[in-house]
Amino acid sequence: MSDSRFDILGLGNAIVDVIARTDDDFLAREKLAKGGMMLIDEARTLKLYDAMGPGTTISGGSAANTIVGAASLGARTAFIGKVKADETGHAFTHDIRSVGVTFNTAPAKEGPATARCLVLVTPDGERTMNTFLGACQNLTPDDVDEDLVRAAEIVYLEGYLWDPPAAKEAFKKAAAVAHAAGRRVALTLSDSFCVDRYRDEFLGLIRERHIDILFANQHELHALYQTSDFDTALSALRDEDIVGVVTRSAEGSVTVTREETHAVPAFPIEKLVDTTGAGDLFAAGFLAGLARGGDFVACGRLGALAAAEVIQHYGARPERSLRELAEQEGLF
Amino acid sequence: MSDSRFDILGLGNAIVDVIARTDDDFLAREKLAKGGMMLIDEARTLKLYDAMGPGTTISGGSAANTIVGAASLGARTAFIGKVKADETGHAFTHDIRSVGVTFNTAPAKEGPATARCLVLVTPDGERTMNTFLGACQNLTPDDVDEDLVRAAEIVYLEGYLWDPPAAKEAFKKAAAVAHAAGRRVALTLSDSFCVDRYRDEFLGLIRERHIDILFANQHELHALYQTSDFDTALSALRDEDIVGVVTRSAEGSVTVTREETHAVPAFPIEKLVDTTGAGDLFAAGFLAGLARGGDFVACGRLGALAAAEVIQHYGARPERSLRELAEQEGLF
Repeated sequence: MSDSRFDILGLGNAIVDVIARTDDDFLAREKLAKGGMMLIDEARTLKLYDAMGPGTTISGGSAANTIVGAASLGARTAFIGKVKADETGHAFTHDIRSVGVTFNTAPAKEGPATARCLVLVTPDGERTMNTFLGACQNLTPDDVDEDLVRAAEIVYLEGYLWDPPAAKEAFKKAAAVAHAAGRRVALTLSDSFCVDRYRDEFLGLIRERHIDILFANQHELHALYQTSDFDTALSALRDEDIVGVVTRSAEGSVTVTREETHAVPAFPIEKLVDTTGAGDLFAAGFLAGLARGGDFVACGRLGALAAAEVIQHYGARPERSLRELAEQEGLF
Repeated sequence: MSDSRFDILGLGNAIVDVIARTDDDFLAREKLAKGGMMLIDEARTLKLYDAMGPGTTISGGSAANTIVGAASLGARTAFIGKVKADETGHAFTHDIRSVGVTFNTAPAKEGPATARCLVLVTPDGERTMNTFLGACQNLTPDDVDEDLVRAAEIVYLEGYLWDPPAAKEAFKKAAAVAHAAGRRVALTLSDSFCVDRYRDEFLGLIRERHIDILFANQHELHALYQTSDFDTALSALRDEDIVGVVTRSAEGSVTVTREETHAVPAFPIEKLVDTTGAGDLFAAGFLAGLARGGDFVACGRLGALAAAEVIQHYGARPERSLRELAEQEGLF
């Protein structure tokens, strides 16, 4: 394994979030499953956008949020994802680069617009996501710069990449290149519905040793192992003999390997505003912790801190320096 | 005076804000005058955007913010302003219509992009604005729908309209049509630098009776009458024999006519986050109060309430229903 230029390289859907406050009646009227992520086509996107209230636009995308969070904690980061050369794509590119992330994937000149996610936030802080994948569908293995993959200690992949057909191949290429270079591969399961769509493929990735570190929340873990019992699911995860990191909202997180189990509590918050990005930022903190050589407990604490910051405001990108926050809290 | 379909028609620059947190060092490095509004060209916009941090995009524009705030307080509202038919223009249009404002100005098909304001917010909550006027420069008297003007009790104009050359003519047309129909005309002075640019013209508008209600903050009032003494400036305003409404940040507001003076305190806040839109939303509350037939004290209280809401979060559009807030506070 040669020296690395990056701690973490993220590969994911490059999405800009349009966030609107709403209520449960609106979700019912529009037949939206609260708390989930639904894929919608362009016509539905326009219709839903027309129906919803005023929007606040902030860059998003699951793995992109994670990479930005890790950068905010001082990690050396890069990202691969596909935007179109349009206004929204320009904003995504600006936002991720402006926090120090290396991002050089060529934007699509033609085809669908940069991906947008209409994020509807109810007064309880729960978010319901409606994603138009747009230009993300044009991410292909050619976009995976092999030198960049080899240059990163960990390549971090989102399960949502299974949705755009060609992106799956990009995902597989990145994982293969990373392993050939002696690097580690991390995957987040993204969403329980995503797990329902691709359960066998995700289990295959794990069991064929393509994945070294798996991030999941408890709903995703239950979906993966098709059980409603947490201990059963956790035990199944332990048997995979990888590093499994499971988040449980206010109940904190558990990291398991075949030999070890480490539980870390959630970080206290003043007020839950918007859960968007909670899992993404937990992963950011955990991965940044690994980059600093921390043990699983230290990593879990950084994850909890980053998640706590992001759920106390709208949007899935940190509003303040997570490094300063970590210093204040004595975690750095 | 015939029946009105609208309480307030706003005429202003149609702008989308890109808000970024920054620090005083950045303002110094970029030679930006803290707290002001600076006009910048497209090249400078791109350069400043590249240099600044990640942005949150929210519709803005001074008169547009006021109209949206008044709509949130239940007023019947319409807006005239120029966007381009681009992604940003589409977002502006969606956001203002989605809160019930009638907005039908034809978007420009050609020429510069929809206006953007790069809003830099320092930790003290002060905002420094850098505006690329873009498509606003294409607002002309042809965009002023005379029937719409006649249909509104009050036409509300922003001083910033003096910046794009053709918009000034649109402004004058709207004021003339309104008065010919027996309606009232309100003007906000917008910004003390704007007053410096157009002092004689603004004083001319007031003294030639084109304006019935004038909104200003104390800095703008000092600039208008070129005095550093508040009482001197207020006395000069009183002598104009119009309704003068002056805001003084945490010290509340004063409404003066030739005969009367009414001071109203500011509304208490928990935490100042971003002053963007404070004056716009004060005007929103005041005008919505007039529409409800309130006296100047009632109007000032509604203005204070609306301003207090908007300065406690990022962006110049209300995040919650101001009508509900007014009901909770016993103002409705």
